Amino acid sequence: MSERIRAFYRVRSDGNVREIAEDICIEQTAEAHRSLVDEPRFREGVLGRVEEIEEAGEGRAVVEISYPAEITAWQIPQLLHVLYGNISLKSGIRLERVLFPPAFTDRFPGPRHGIGGLRSLTGVMHRPLLAAALKPMGLRAEELAERAGAFARGGIDIIKDDHGLSDQTFCPFEERVRAVTAALKRARDATGRRTLYFPSITERFDVLERRVDWAAAEGADGVLLSPLITGLDAVRHLAERSGPAVAIMAHPALAGAYFCDADHGISMQLVLGKLMRLAGADLVIFPSHGGRFPVRRDDSLAVAEALRSRLYRLRPAWPMPAGGIDVENVPVLREDYGDDCVLLVGSSLYTSSPDLEASARRFLSLVE
Amino acid sequence: MSERIRAFYRVRSDGNVREIAEDICIEQTAEAHRSLVDEPRFREGVLGRVEEIEEAGEGRAVVEISYPAEITAWQIPQLLHVLYGNISLKSGIRLERVLFPPAFTDRFPGPRHGIGGLRSLTGVMHRPLLAAALKPMGLRAEELAERAGAFARGGIDIIKDDHGLSDQTFCPFEERVRAVTAALKRARDATGRRTLYFPSITERFDVLERRVDWAAAEGADGVLLSPLITGLDAVRHLAERSGPAVAIMAHPALAGAYFCDADHGISMQLVLGKLMRLAGADLVIFPSHGGRFPVRRDDSLAVAEALRSRLYRLRPAWPMPAGGIDVENVPVLREDYGDDCVLLVGSSLYTSSPDLEASARRFLSLVE
Repeated sequence: MSERIRAFYRVRSDGNVREIAEDICIEQTAEAHRSLVDEPRFREGVLGRVEEIEEAGEGRAVVEISYPAEITAWQIPQLLHVLYGNISLKSGIRLERVLFPPAFTDRFPGPRHGIGGLRSLTGVMHRPLLAAALKPMGLRAEELAERAGAFARGGIDIIKDDHGLSDQTFCPFEERVRAVTAALKRARDATGRRTLYFPSITERFDVLERRVDWAAAEGADGVLLSPLITGLDAVRHLAERSGPAVAIMAHPALAGAYFCDADHGISMQLVLGKLMRLAGADLVIFPSHGGRFPVRRDDSLAVAEALRSRLYRLRPAWPMPAGGIDVENVPVLREDYGDDCVLLVGSSLYTSSPDLEASARRFLSLVE
Repeated sequence: MSERIRAFYRVRSDGNVREIAEDICIEQTAEAHRSLVDEPRFREGVLGRVEEIEEAGEGRAVVEISYPAEITAWQIPQLLHVLYGNISLKSGIRLERVLFPPAFTDRFPGPRHGIGGLRSLTGVMHRPLLAAALKPMGLRAEELAERAGAFARGGIDIIKDDHGLSDQTFCPFEERVRAVTAALKRARDATGRRTLYFPSITERFDVLERRVDWAAAEGADGVLLSPLITGLDAVRHLAERSGPAVAIMAHPALAGAYFCDADHGISMQLVLGKLMRLAGADLVIFPSHGGRFPVRRDDSLAVAEALRSRLYRLRPAWPMPAGGIDVENVPVLREDYGDDCVLLVGSSLYTSSPDLEASARRFLSLVE
């Protein structure tokens, strides 16, 4: 019972921080009137404990609360209950950071491939990987496959479906995966270079895993999931099971709801950083500064840091900054993120030239 | 392609509403630069369309955007991508309401039991149902079962686990379900009245369904899930499959992240109302006005309305107002919500008397 998870909340208050902190300790655990849990077995074994309160100015304070790791039942769904389940319904409480004890993270496999694994797969050892997205929704499978082939011949390392490419009648999932993997195989035969393919598989609960296996059998190297839609634990399951070792790329769909309010919710570095890595994502797409989403540089760099920095036995995952990045801006982002990142350029590869192979070559030339 | 889903966003703007609206139309669908989708096949078949813009004062406008239903692939995960996936990462865009065409809702079973089903099961036809929560976390299974028995003898209709009761070593899941179902059986033998039991099963992706089936086989009448943690589509799957017909109670854990920011996110009536019902929740717990969460009366009544009002062929679901409701306040809430609701009283049943059977009788007397 001695292992504890430490959570740091930024709290808005007018002098009653201690009271808010003590409320969190109970709300997130025993969820009962104080008089009902005023016994050692609750205080020691179950309740959160206020470890520290630090004033942060402007009516804010940072509150550190520790929880016994045991109450999470060592699983992600219950961990989310404990960290933010009920207090999400209050206001002015923002979960900023979490420190796990190794006894907790050791229960999770984390990224199966991570940075090293995908470097081996692609053979690209000393620069950022280059990624392109198949788009727009509305094209037929063959048209997307043609684009994939051009990108691959031009030197793109990773091709992903747009996350909105699901299983629509105008572009059925199986037809798309077959067409794209075939196009990438032809490109590889021509160039000798391997381009990885990640089809989008944010799917129904009962279909998800089957689709992943089917895609792997067809030659897909990984899958693109939206963990905040499928449930974060779907990632953990796919990373942990003994099935095909597909790499998992996480999309940030819906994530903004968590960090849109500066005074409430969960920080971007936690939602798209540490939690995704804990679950086992090998690559995490996130909105970067310098694109079309309103993101501060500090915040996007903090996501990258959370994915790559030392975290006990968990492998580092790839930060994949994205969201309206202009290909000409790539050198700046490379400076910001360093070499261990996947630079995902979307529309800009399509608009910079009608010749996608040439666009890809331009992208590569800016990184090599 | 003529069936469209209509979404209403409240947008913060300084005179550029039209531009924001048109951005949403593309961002949520083709996700590509405008120049890449300026063809009829995208405009007609894929992109969102601005149907109406209405000024709402104070720099806000309500924007109605319709999407072709086909792009959702008729499934909930992709529906969430379309409605709010990427724009969650922007700011000042709040999804308030969605109108589905019957061609869309007809693809979903909705609540399997709904209001009528649980009235038949309990035999309570003309008043709100009474619900109590087993708590606090930290008690052993036998202690919780004793409490369940007392509540049942006192007249409670539905007993649920606290959502934090998972599978901790101090109260293992199977032991708890066995003990509580046995206690409720004894109470039923004594009183002739049936009390339903909903154990908490927010679980790992690969364990969830097995647990649900196991609980049903042991005599649980339903399960408590946190759909925003397991993925909303887990509810749909459990409601739709041919397995045991357990009723599904949805918990609002993490939901507050969606509606905490008045200018961004997704409204409570949509997250906890229409979307939960579409997925197939039979009962939905939500924070009510008059409790310990900061909720406006209009907002909690709107959730109840969304769960119960006519929606093509979908059965109505039970609104389950909760969150620090004092048992003495029950008559007021009954006035507010009417008879078709489940009143969930938590700590107050424990603090109002050490004799839980007496507390339950008091609760019943205030409703009958």
